[in-house]
Amino acid sequence: MKKHILIVPGDGIGQEVTAVGKKVVEKIAAKFGHEFTYDEALIGHAAIEATGDPLPEETLVKMKASDAVLFGAVGHPKYDNDPSAKVRPEQGLLKMRKELGLYANLRPIKLFDELLEASSIKPELLRGADILFFRELTGDVYFGKRERIDGGNTAYDTMIYSKYEVERIARKAFDAAMTRGKKLMSVDKANVLESSRLWREVVLEVAKDYPEVELSHQFVDAAAMLLIKDPRKFDVVVTGNLFGDILTDEASQIAGSMGMLASASIGDSTGVYEPIHGSAHDITGKGVANPLASILSAALMLDISFGLKAESEAIIAAVDATLKAGFRTGDIADASTPKDMILGTDAMGEQILSRI
Amino acid sequence: MKKHILIVPGDGIGQEVTAVGKKVVEKIAAKFGHEFTYDEALIGHAAIEATGDPLPEETLVKMKASDAVLFGAVGHPKYDNDPSAKVRPEQGLLKMRKELGLYANLRPIKLFDELLEASSIKPELLRGADILFFRELTGDVYFGKRERIDGGNTAYDTMIYSKYEVERIARKAFDAAMTRGKKLMSVDKANVLESSRLWREVVLEVAKDYPEVELSHQFVDAAAMLLIKDPRKFDVVVTGNLFGDILTDEASQIAGSMGMLASASIGDSTGVYEPIHGSAHDITGKGVANPLASILSAALMLDISFGLKAESEAIIAAVDATLKAGFRTGDIADASTPKDMILGTDAMGEQILSRI
Ligand SMILES: CC(C)[C@H](C(=O)O)[C@@H](O)C(=O)O
Ligand SMILES: CC(C)[C@H](C(=O)O)[C@@H](O)C(=O)O
Repeated sequence: MKKHILIVPGDGIGQEVTAVGKKVVEKIAAKFGHEFTYDEALIGHAAIEATGDPLPEETLVKMKASDAVLFGAVGHPKYDNDPSAKVRPEQGLLKMRKELGLYANLRPIKLFDELLEASSIKPELLRGADILFFRELTGDVYFGKRERIDGGNTAYDTMIYSKYEVERIARKAFDAAMTRGKKLMSVDKANVLESSRLWREVVLEVAKDYPEVELSHQFVDAAAMLLIKDPRKFDVVVTGNLFGDILTDEASQIAGSMGMLASASIGDSTGVYEPIHGSAHDITGKGVANPLASILSAALMLDISFGLKAESEAIIAAVDATLKAGFRTGDIADASTPKDMILGTDAMGEQILSRI
Repeated sequence: MKKHILIVPGDGIGQEVTAVGKKVVEKIAAKFGHEFTYDEALIGHAAIEATGDPLPEETLVKMKASDAVLFGAVGHPKYDNDPSAKVRPEQGLLKMRKELGLYANLRPIKLFDELLEASSIKPELLRGADILFFRELTGDVYFGKRERIDGGNTAYDTMIYSKYEVERIARKAFDAAMTRGKKLMSVDKANVLESSRLWREVVLEVAKDYPEVELSHQFVDAAAMLLIKDPRKFDVVVTGNLFGDILTDEASQIAGSMGMLASASIGDSTGVYEPIHGSAHDITGKGVANPLASILSAALMLDISFGLKAESEAIIAAVDATLKAGFRTGDIADASTPKDMILGTDAMGEQILSRI
């Protein structure tokens, strides 16, 4: 198979982990006889430094021209305490999502058996937990109008959804539920928010086309609680952009670490595959970042964008075997992990490569 | 001391648990020689049924005339899947918060030693966790303009904060931090939201008056993750209305159950004391609801509104002793709890009363 892949490392550990993710894709191509070509492009703080623009036109053109994007992370602490900054790394990420029409963000939360002990949640509550989040990604308070008013003394953002936006993500989630346990939970705050009432209305409407799927609704506060209390109650979950942001980060603790979680952003054109973790500047440059989320993002890319199931599974099997062999990065090590089994970013990458 | 207390049970298990909370207050009054008088008023679904209004004028007048309100819960499932309902129980709760100027919602998350095993989080990560949340309660997307537009096909809510609103809750949180570990975490989503950037700006400004307090900032998604990963990293936390709603429900799992958590809503006039749990219609009328959150809300009332420290501590000591004696309600029982030690609402109340 011939495919053109754009590598967009972004900022912080995005650079380090994406480099390893790319090596894994190259190994797969060699082993399975595919012709993958690669290009690279800038986004976020790295792009601001080079061009002044967090999503340069050149990057966007390259993204649209590629068959899939392997993405790193975006962000830089220098903007965080500077509310006056007009140009910010995250603008590049949000604009990319909007311009590529990436309205569905899939975040599978699955625990590798070997990491049962790495989580802060009790193992007996975790065993078998397997959740697939559908986070809406191009609407909500992320993209509504925002401004300062009242001489700068008041600020607002607009949480906004239109029916077609809810419908298309709901359909994707119901479709996925049909291929899994036929259970779908929709999360909103319909007891307070009008946009959530519209959300629930549309989900109830779409449900009529999926009579076999058992649909439930949770308020976001209750969902945040239940996710910890009883993670196995969750199967497929569909929710808006902001609630999805919060709940999937929280749910990362089910998988032991954010360093294990991959995501797929899909929609109208090129799919983007990225770890759910951020740029993590506190550990950037130390060579200790966990590359498995990037590697598993590559697996999602092969599966979802290219339909290469066996190749995708080869990566997952290699991750599993490496964990079974006892290798860990710092974030997924526990008190019982021998010091010499705790690997840095590249060494962990080598272990995976050697098992493909 | 003479005080007039208004009991507002609200809906669902609110009725059952508040009745027990009141008995505990009566016992305290008898034992410590206080003259408390009581009245009762309607809110929520119960008020809609009786008067058509989720917060009848009579209730509001009584609230303003009382020295403190002991509150139950509000909500009814019949509205949840009916996006067209114009009158909703929650409107009563939100209007009460606004009308009484209850801008600061204090939610202490403290684990009773005996419940270390009741949590889904590993005990070794929990021991010693002690968090005090300050949730802003009269602003944010709860009170901004919301409407349907575009012929009903689009809905929006407005997430909005003014500087004075952030400043007054921030000061309360900094003040509390000074009496505790001198650490304050502010939670926002300043990498995306303008209202969060205003939030952070004001918090940084207020911080100048508290040079001894170590201030940190977290994005809400990271905070949702860290709360599970490392709950002991948290001391005093200040955040907006929506993020506070989500994070405190999530944090309830640190205390073993929502059934253990009390809250105080304070501001310009009468303080309101309520469990953080909801109306829980799935268990309403079964007599199994945990009354300890209502009992601990009464303790907060005595302490914060009346300055009765010893009385408040007498309640907390009775709860502690009852748990030490092995008594549990269903929500805080675990596999090792003997069946006959699992009590219903009233029987648990009796155990507490007998220890005051
Ligand atoms: C960096 C940030 C803007 C982003 C988001 O909130 O969407 C991140 O947290 C994510 O989840 O991809
Ligand atoms: C019932 C609901 C409107 C309320 C809220 O969201 O504030 C509740 O969840 C709470 O936390 O008191």
